[in-house]
Amino acid sequence: MKIRIEPLTHEAFKPFGDVIDCDGAARHYTINEGYAERYHDIAKIDVAGESGRPLLSIFRAKPRALPLRIAMMERHPLSSQAFIPLALRPFLVLVARPGDAPAPGDLRCFRTQGSQGVNYARGTWHHPLIALEPEQDFLVLDRGGDGKNCDEINFVDDVFIVSA
Amino acid sequence: MKIRIEPLTHEAFKPFGDVIDCDGAARHYTINEGYAERYHDIAKIDVAGESGRPLLSIFRAKPRALPLRIAMMERHPLSSQAFIPLALRPFLVLVARPGDAPAPGDLRCFRTQGSQGVNYARGTWHHPLIALEPEQDFLVLDRGGDGKNCDEINFVDDVFIVSA
Repeated sequence: MKIRIEPLTHEAFKPFGDVIDCDGAARHYTINEGYAERYHDIAKIDVAGESGRPLLSIFRAKPRALPLRIAMMERHPLSSQAFIPLALRPFLVLVARPGDAPAPGDLRCFRTQGSQGVNYARGTWHHPLIALEPEQDFLVLDRGGDGKNCDEINFVDDVFIVSA
Repeated sequence: MKIRIEPLTHEAFKPFGDVIDCDGAARHYTINEGYAERYHDIAKIDVAGESGRPLLSIFRAKPRALPLRIAMMERHPLSSQAFIPLALRPFLVLVARPGDAPAPGDLRCFRTQGSQGVNYARGTWHHPLIALEPEQDFLVLDRGGDGKNCDEINFVDDVFIVSA
C-alpha cells in the first residue's frame, strides 16, 4: 500500500495534536513597545502531569531515503511531544489517532511547509522523524520523569511512503 | 557608558541560565535505528512549579536600531524563559545576575552564533529581545498560570549598545 501525502494544515492535523506556527496561536498581541508580536500559546504542551517535567532536547536527524517502508509506529502514553525544525525545511509527519494499534488504512502522512512544527498529542501514534534534507536539527519538547512513556508496534504489511 | 559585546559561550552564560544548542546536552545518544542523535536535556526548563504550566509561543521580532539606549530591564520571578531562533541568525542578549536591580556596570551583552538560543534562569535580569535582522521569529518557552511573573526596572543612566 502506498500512503498519500497531504499538506499539513491545522484543520487536518486536529485529531493528532497541534501544528506549531503563528496561525496556531490562541491570540496575539504587541509587546516590547512595538518591537515584537507575541503569538501566544500555540500548542497544548502536556508534559508536566504525573510527576513529569518539561524536557528540551535537540534531535539531529539524517534524511530518510524514499521509498520508505513503514516498519513501526510509536506513541507516548504519558505526554505530548513537540518537534520544531531549527532551519526552515519541510519534513514528513506520519500519524494515526490515539487508541488501538492502527491498521495501514488508518495512517495519515503530512508534509510540513518548512516553517511548521508539530506537537503530537498524548497517545497519538507516530513514526519516528522523517527528515528530507541532508542532516536537520529539530528542537524537541517532551517529558522527563519516571514511567514507561513509549509504546511501539511493528508493521508486517507492505506500507510505503513513495515520494515526498 | 558603552556596553562591550562578548561571544555567547556556555561558560560565560552560566550565571544567567543556559545556552541552547547541542553542546549544552547532559548527554547524547543515537535513536531511531541510527537516523537521529538525541542531544538530551539541553536546558533547565523551570516553568511548572507553583501552579505553572509550560507555555509555548512565537515572538515575531522587529530589528532594533543601533546604537540602542538601554531604558529598562525585566525579570521573571516565577519561571525560566527560553528563546530559540527559528532561522539561523544571531541576536543580542543583554543580562544581569538575579538579585538586586543591576547597575550599568553589572550588565553583560552577548552575541549569539545564529544556531544558539538562550534560556534565562528564574530571576535573571534581561532586556527584551534584541533582534538584528529584518523581522525574525523566535520560539519562546515560558510559564502559563496565575501570579505576577514580571518585574521591570527603568534605567536613567546613559547606557548604550553601540554595535553588534
